Amino acid sequence: MQIQTQGNSTTALIVGASQGIGLEFVRQFIQNNRAQRIYATYRNPQAEILTISDPRLRCLQMDITEEAQIANVVEEIKTETSVLNYVINCVGVLYEGAMQPEKSLRQLNSEQLLRYFQVNSIGAVLLAKHIQPLLKHQQRSIFATISAKVGSISDNHLGGWYGYRASKAALNMFMRTTALEYKRSCPRAIAVTLHPGTTDTQLSKPFQRNVPPEKLFSVERTVQQLLMVIDQLKESDSGEFFSWDGDRLPW
Amino acid sequence: MQIQTQGNSTTALIVGASQGIGLEFVRQFIQNNRAQRIYATYRNPQAEILTISDPRLRCLQMDITEEAQIANVVEEIKTETSVLNYVINCVGVLYEGAMQPEKSLRQLNSEQLLRYFQVNSIGAVLLAKHIQPLLKHQQRSIFATISAKVGSISDNHLGGWYGYRASKAALNMFMRTTALEYKRSCPRAIAVTLHPGTTDTQLSKPFQRNVPPEKLFSVERTVQQLLMVIDQLKESDSGEFFSWDGDRLPW
Ligand SMILES: NC(=O)c1ccc[n+]([C@@H]2O[C@H](COP(=O)([O-])OP(=O)(O)OC[C@H]3O[C@@H](n4cnc5c(N)ncnc54)[C@H](OP(=O)(O)O)[C@@H]3O)[C@@H](O)[C@H]2O)c1
Ligand SMILES: NC(=O)c1ccc[n+]([C@@H]2O[C@H](COP(=O)([O-])OP(=O)(O)OC[C@H]3O[C@@H](n4cnc5c(N)ncnc54)[C@H](OP(=O)(O)O)[C@@H]3O)[C@@H](O)[C@H]2O)c1
Repeated sequence: MQIQTQGNSTTALIVGASQGIGLEFVRQFIQNNRAQRIYATYRNPQAEILTISDPRLRCLQMDITEEAQIANVVEEIKTETSVLNYVINCVGVLYEGAMQPEKSLRQLNSEQLLRYFQVNSIGAVLLAKHIQPLLKHQQRSIFATISAKVGSISDNHLGGWYGYRASKAALNMFMRTTALEYKRSCPRAIAVTLHPGTTDTQLSKPFQRNVPPEKLFSVERTVQQLLMVIDQLKESDSGEFFSWDGDRLPW
Repeated sequence: MQIQTQGNSTTALIVGASQGIGLEFVRQFIQNNRAQRIYATYRNPQAEILTISDPRLRCLQMDITEEAQIANVVEEIKTETSVLNYVINCVGVLYEGAMQPEKSLRQLNSEQLLRYFQVNSIGAVLLAKHIQPLLKHQQRSIFATISAKVGSISDNHLGGWYGYRASKAALNMFMRTTALEYKRSCPRAIAVTLHPGTTDTQLSKPFQRNVPPEKLFSVERTVQQLLMVIDQLKESDSGEFFSWDGDRLPW
């Protein structure tokens, strides 16, 4: 089936859309009719996203640590369109299985640290590599990756969370380096990292105790806020790191 | 043999001392009689450091990607002393075997990126973990790791070198996080990252073509400069990133 994506139609790819912030991006893209074609990736085959039935939505399975699966998703999208207007990467891990954020040096181990880099940093830049051909066009496009303020080195006054922090700092460097390359290869693409604010998802659940209620955002609020930031991005913002309120964050 | 390291005697550990900047640190520590006991690690069993014969020097083999080998080096040092005054980590990789710094996204692959993180970032923080007991004392001590200005995210205006850049940004985050933990656990330890300037070593050889001669330092000059920076560090500098000329670098 060849979907009509030419002319004024807008296309989006939401990566890591099975739950949390990514799932809500898909919901709001559908609700607000922001795109006429929405690709969404999920890893978990029981993902909630698979229960949404909308002709604009196409779900594709992808583990971001497998480069061949990223390449495959891009190939699938290319059978329908050569243009993406939005690529929003919401994949991220803070804990999984026996892996927990490290409170102190004592808790560090090599495999867990590698896992953080593989999911949170390397996944994003491999996506940047494979998605590039779909951003080489004359329309404005956004390549946004969800990072985290705890990945700001200068803002780190608390310590702890070694692997998560370092993987988000590495992500920020990867995305800034990508933005510099895109300036030459896809000059209308704006590549940024975004801090969503503490948001009520599975990822933050075990760490919400000390968060005052007004600082814990619903996914609906977070995605509304991030879309406002995205809508205001200028080409000169490419390579920068923005907070949910539109402020630039320091590295 | 129990070496006398009490009283006024000073001890140092230079990590990655087989060649380049690390080897020169050992030479200058010996020449200037900066320490009465110097531990030096090497990986390559043909390392030049093994030809230095000085009763103050003890060489220990260690691959920084093997946590057990780091632990073993620390155990060996502990048989002689419970105090280190200087720990200087000079391990780093830019290319090795088929691995070359990536000029563009096209050249990225997961294994190479993981290797950069493992050697340049994870190695350093595992060293910080195991060395901690030897920094828990009442004397001033320095834990310095050689990073690189290309690891500064805000200073990145050129792009390229994805893995090396991201691994040095991650290293900077790891060391800042370590500095925060050390403030509590080893309050007299000063943990910093240092940019040596472009230095004539094996690592920079293939990339020296466009470096003006006055900006290409000999290892002697680099180590003299870095020792001047180290000597001037205050406790409040812990967690920061310094250039060879003593300027603080932005993250
Ligand atoms: N929530 C917060 O307070 C907060 C704060 C700052 C930053 N962030 C960042 O926001 C982003 C979204 O997080 P969230 O709060 O929405 O968390 P979440 O509900 O746990 O969602 C995480 C998403 O990442 C996906 N994922 C994890 N590992 C993956 C892998 N190897 N391959 C493919 N997908 C993978 C998950 O897929 P499956 O469900 O299919 O496994 C899920 O869709 C993350 O980057 C996170 O670091 C969140
Ligand atoms: N030279 C420059 O212009 C420059 C500029 C900015 C930053 N730096 C940084 O300065 C530091 C020192 O580099 P250099 O210029 O002196 O380079 P070098 O001469 O190539 O020395 C690198 C050192 O790292 C060791 N090493 C590499 N992988 C290792 C591993 N897995 N386990 C243990 N040791 C390992 C090497 O040991 P073996 O010889 O035993 O293999 C060698 O001692 C690095 O962190 C580098 O990134 C250098």
